[in-house]
Amino acid sequence: MTYADRWLLPDGVEEILPAEARPIELLRRRLLELYRTWGYDMVIPPLLEYTDSLLIGLGRDVDLLTFKVTDQLSGRTLGIRADITPQIARMDAHSYKRDGANRLCYAGHVVHTKPKNPLATRTPIQAGVELYGEPGLPADAEVVSLLAESLRTAGLPRLHIDLGHVGIYRALMAKVDVEPALKDAFFAMLQRKAVAEIEQWVADNISTPAIAKVLLALPGLAGGREILANARALFAAVASDAVTAVDQLAGIADVIEQRYPEVELYFDLGELRGYHYLTGLVFAAFAPGYGNPIASGGRYDHIGEVFGRRRPATGFAVDITALSKLGLLSADKGILIGVVNDGSDAQWAAIGALRAEGERVVSAESRAALAGLGCDRELVKQDEQYRVVAL
Amino acid sequence: MTYADRWLLPDGVEEILPAEARPIELLRRRLLELYRTWGYDMVIPPLLEYTDSLLIGLGRDVDLLTFKVTDQLSGRTLGIRADITPQIARMDAHSYKRDGANRLCYAGHVVHTKPKNPLATRTPIQAGVELYGEPGLPADAEVVSLLAESLRTAGLPRLHIDLGHVGIYRALMAKVDVEPALKDAFFAMLQRKAVAEIEQWVADNISTPAIAKVLLALPGLAGGREILANARALFAAVASDAVTAVDQLAGIADVIEQRYPEVELYFDLGELRGYHYLTGLVFAAFAPGYGNPIASGGRYDHIGEVFGRRRPATGFAVDITALSKLGLLSADKGILIGVVNDGSDAQWAAIGALRAEGERVVSAESRAALAGLGCDRELVKQDEQYRVVAL
Repeated sequence: MTYADRWLLPDGVEEILPAEARPIELLRRRLLELYRTWGYDMVIPPLLEYTDSLLIGLGRDVDLLTFKVTDQLSGRTLGIRADITPQIARMDAHSYKRDGANRLCYAGHVVHTKPKNPLATRTPIQAGVELYGEPGLPADAEVVSLLAESLRTAGLPRLHIDLGHVGIYRALMAKVDVEPALKDAFFAMLQRKAVAEIEQWVADNISTPAIAKVLLALPGLAGGREILANARALFAAVASDAVTAVDQLAGIADVIEQRYPEVELYFDLGELRGYHYLTGLVFAAFAPGYGNPIASGGRYDHIGEVFGRRRPATGFAVDITALSKLGLLSADKGILIGVVNDGSDAQWAAIGALRAEGERVVSAESRAALAGLGCDRELVKQDEQYRVVAL
Repeated sequence: MTYADRWLLPDGVEEILPAEARPIELLRRRLLELYRTWGYDMVIPPLLEYTDSLLIGLGRDVDLLTFKVTDQLSGRTLGIRADITPQIARMDAHSYKRDGANRLCYAGHVVHTKPKNPLATRTPIQAGVELYGEPGLPADAEVVSLLAESLRTAGLPRLHIDLGHVGIYRALMAKVDVEPALKDAFFAMLQRKAVAEIEQWVADNISTPAIAKVLLALPGLAGGREILANARALFAAVASDAVTAVDQLAGIADVIEQRYPEVELYFDLGELRGYHYLTGLVFAAFAPGYGNPIASGGRYDHIGEVFGRRRPATGFAVDITALSKLGLLSADKGILIGVVNDGSDAQWAAIGALRAEGERVVSAESRAALAGLGCDRELVKQDEQYRVVAL
């Protein structure tokens, strides 16, 4: 590598320069303060752990996203975290175990071996919350509300949240008596919303008309709140657990519509994101002009089981890096006051007073250097007093 | 791995629980705001880069501390950063190039393959500053002042800064005419302050009495400001560059004594820390009760050269994790207000108003759950009004 290209960064790995770093830092603080006022305690999980701890519960996708290294002290394999959720599960199960509800929040980098999608960075900065120990609708409603509040805090002009429930697919497929391999094929078709293939599959495999009707309808059960009543009627003939899941979605919609009338809710009852580890509600937030979710979450009640503590769990993570790309955050102005160092106590005191007020003051050895630093004002001595004047 | 030990963390890898995380977060913000008011722009360098970029300039020590992984996209080797300084050098040389002074600051995790010393974590959180483009004493005095200000901000009751200058050893050894291997042996002896070995080495290798006298004195040239005059007189007979270095130390001491009279300065003219990449002033801060430096820095003028831009550079990094262990930071109190959710608009508005004031409010479905959450107060409805009362 010659020095002409030593400054190259790997594809998908980004450095964040001052114009973006300051808004990201301010958003990070605002989100952590928001979570704090909602009773969430901040934790700082480590950047790497044994893969035995880190790659549990979330399945093979996270495994492939995780860089592995050998620990020179133990000879065992460590993973650079690609997701913070398993780390919080470990804390809830052991080091920060509480009997009742446990509300935890975090903000930090994760690292991915490959971009999760073509637009994504491999080193996103995430902030998130996890609520352990609360199984019910109020807990789900709390985290979706806190997601809406996070998007407000980030300055998103339009809030758009997608809701689904993996219990629907699970309940319906429990009524379908076909080989597992055929179920897997149906899963893949539904994920792609491949309607023609689904029609063929149902014609080939399903003899009960009520079930066939529901499976054919499933990819189309997406839209505004009005679809819930339709779905409820369809599911009632087939699987009562699916009806319960629809009622949970309606319950959450009631709360969000009351608290955040500006949020557009969109339901997708065939949503399968995180199906292998999620156990109930699944949700994601979208912003105009960005094709991927800027936040996502759901309920994953079993995640702490591998640590010996099976607890209800729900939460979400916000992609701070993606939000910053939307250009919705405005940083405070960074205009500088320059000063030519005269070495006096009085000048040092005047500089200290300005800094204590939050002004940005830089010193230089000559006036010529001040403009080059981007200063718009100057601290000068006039009539034995230090004053700030336009440069 | 059974689930009984899945919660184990690797040796030297730490998770930070709420009681420590909040003070660390607050210190992080205070330091970044401090650096901001001194005109330093925040950057967020990535957690990993090509080793070709990351392992330059700082020598073999950093190489051994750096975890390596293979980039699946390029097939090249990436390093998880063990030090942020080379990343800032890359930015100053390329992506955030400026003609004049460039003041940059950062805060974030670094990861080490092995603890740097027995007390250290392998995943320390650092905050730091780098000042590029200013070669002179004022720049060195600025960064040492900013270090003193950082320690004040962290609430350290006694500030203790060690100062040295690698130019002294370099200037003296330039006058010693022996084989490189013998110089290496002397370097190792001086690093250990092995006085008896140094006496033997000087007797065997040095015939010029003035040089012998200086080399024999070097390990003892450590202490308060009074040693500088003595050193100056000794060096004057041998190497004028060493005298210049002593004068620089005196100049910095003048500034620090004027601005921060509470700081204890200690000089060590045989200090060799970072000798292979530092080019001038070297300094470190110590706190009572912690054996290792809590901050360290110096001048390293050549570091950007491998990126094609040789610029003067000086800066330091503060170990936020180490500072947090000193227990000097007090977090704001995290006492909670509990509320039994009644689903009303009025209650939701009352909760929102409290949160907007910075109060921490958690809701539960029953009063019994509130005490278990650690609530000290409760939001209740009295006479059609929501009020906060003691629980």
